[in-house]
Amino acid sequence: MTDASLRLPTFADVARAAERIAGVAHRTPVLTSRTADERTGARLFFKAENLQRAGAFKFRGAYNAIAALPAEARARGVLAYSSGNHAQAIALASRLLAVPATIVMPLDAPAMKVAATAGYGAEVVRFDRYTQDRVALGREIAQARGLTLIPPYDHPDVIAGQGTLGLELIEDTGALDMLVACLGGGGMLSGCALAAAERAPGCTVIGVEPEAGDDGQRSFREGRIVTIPVPRTIADGAQTTFLGAHTFPIIQQRVADIVTVSDAELVATMRFFAERMKLVVEPTGCLAAAAVLHGRLDVRAKRVGVVISGGNIDLAAFARHIGT
Amino acid sequence: MTDASLRLPTFADVARAAERIAGVAHRTPVLTSRTADERTGARLFFKAENLQRAGAFKFRGAYNAIAALPAEARARGVLAYSSGNHAQAIALASRLLAVPATIVMPLDAPAMKVAATAGYGAEVVRFDRYTQDRVALGREIAQARGLTLIPPYDHPDVIAGQGTLGLELIEDTGALDMLVACLGGGGMLSGCALAAAERAPGCTVIGVEPEAGDDGQRSFREGRIVTIPVPRTIADGAQTTFLGAHTFPIIQQRVADIVTVSDAELVATMRFFAERMKLVVEPTGCLAAAAVLHGRLDVRAKRVGVVISGGNIDLAAFARHIGT
Repeated sequence: MTDASLRLPTFADVARAAERIAGVAHRTPVLTSRTADERTGARLFFKAENLQRAGAFKFRGAYNAIAALPAEARARGVLAYSSGNHAQAIALASRLLAVPATIVMPLDAPAMKVAATAGYGAEVVRFDRYTQDRVALGREIAQARGLTLIPPYDHPDVIAGQGTLGLELIEDTGALDMLVACLGGGGMLSGCALAAAERAPGCTVIGVEPEAGDDGQRSFREGRIVTIPVPRTIADGAQTTFLGAHTFPIIQQRVADIVTVSDAELVATMRFFAERMKLVVEPTGCLAAAAVLHGRLDVRAKRVGVVISGGNIDLAAFARHIGT
Repeated sequence: MTDASLRLPTFADVARAAERIAGVAHRTPVLTSRTADERTGARLFFKAENLQRAGAFKFRGAYNAIAALPAEARARGVLAYSSGNHAQAIALASRLLAVPATIVMPLDAPAMKVAATAGYGAEVVRFDRYTQDRVALGREIAQARGLTLIPPYDHPDVIAGQGTLGLELIEDTGALDMLVACLGGGGMLSGCALAAAERAPGCTVIGVEPEAGDDGQRSFREGRIVTIPVPRTIADGAQTTFLGAHTFPIIQQRVADIVTVSDAELVATMRFFAERMKLVVEPTGCLAAAAVLHGRLDVRAKRVGVVISGGNIDLAAFARHIGT
């Protein structure tokens, strides 16, 4: 199943990542809500990565992966293709580490996201997603300029970086019975699973996907990486169509189950966060909480860590979702 | 100027309040934003009381005032009149302390706030604000039932309770050059001023009001409590028409200035909090930050504490403000 040539990250990589990001990434707060506890009968601990730098957990993995590069690779620069949180995370991390960054983004990416990425000082290369292959384009630019590609999830240092959020959560809450995290490609989920296995033995780790984008659940149950067409869901951060070669074996070994929630449940959860916890959470960031609040998991009488993965959503779209 | 019969709170009262609320009130996080720092040239520390229990700092003073009552007064119960955050704070604090609470609310108070108050177990008494005097009605009920009135700001234990947020902020940030807080009746501002005077000597304390509701600024400058008609402003928590007999002397002695901001600046700040800091903040909660972000204060190169006082706003209203 696992390619023997892969370097799979271990807990030691997560611990090293925690040292690298200390004082650079925010140590985000762990928030609680009596209302959510009463509704579920559990004791819930929300790790608020929407309050992370650049608005999502992605900064952890991006910074760790770039900081781990040899000096000469850093001097040449890095490349990423993403229209989402990974792009902004790479752009910000590169600026902080004084590494040149090139981000390949589709022509129809939201103007706000392009501006934010360029605002961090990255060079943005646009492509037409209907006529150009971003992977080929990225490779071409990377080769021509000697840049190192930093993928959004399928990379040991990215996985290890994301795992630091699980480590912090467990440090702040003590023993947990369950840890619930969303997944797209599974970088954060597998990193958190490494942290939990080491620091919260006995903690059940659960992944949550949108119903329409259940490639992770299917892969988990079928025992092989299943690829699906781009799913229609408001959880744009979980529109990934397949798990990574590095993330899948960790998920197989350390994750207990993957469940799904509907877009309607994501909207209800977004409203819950805004109304009761005063947080702006993007749809993808609502996945884990939606599974807990809508009865997808048996959490009664348990101490449960719930990852809020990010808060990057266009204000107008957010207003549409929460307005009545 | 000061009525000699008044018991004005001191820092010792703030310290005692901190002991009373420990483990009951949330120790809310102090958040930072590089974007806000770059825009202002300052180092800003936002005390996020929108993440406080019941959604606003008011819980601190309510809990402290009720916890400070003699046992027999607690057994009889407390009364408050408020249609806002104070009502919910008293209702919640009463439930936690097993004290019966009666809240006098106008017939046209938002259904959501009435429901939230009743949901905490308080008895809600409605009145017609156009034909009935709430003060007379409250006094009548209080006398008939032997209840203790807990006013929203003009009370030493309420002031001391609110001061705990200033104390926590200074404990978390270390030395501050400036502390900026909103005011309605001035309970929180004066409590924070007591904390700053003791724990951050040399820190300049500034109050912020809506332009339309500048009674505090006028009182401060004229040296007497000025009463204004109910101001038209979206900052509903600062529609108070006069400072308190307990808050005014503390403000006179310990606050350096009171400045004002416009409703348009509050909306811009609400959008900033949602977009860049992923927080839902009510208009009143934006007052202090609006003054800092819109150049009302010379904050350049200073370490500045900024109070986000609360996040209780109807979702539909919030969506209208932030949607484009």
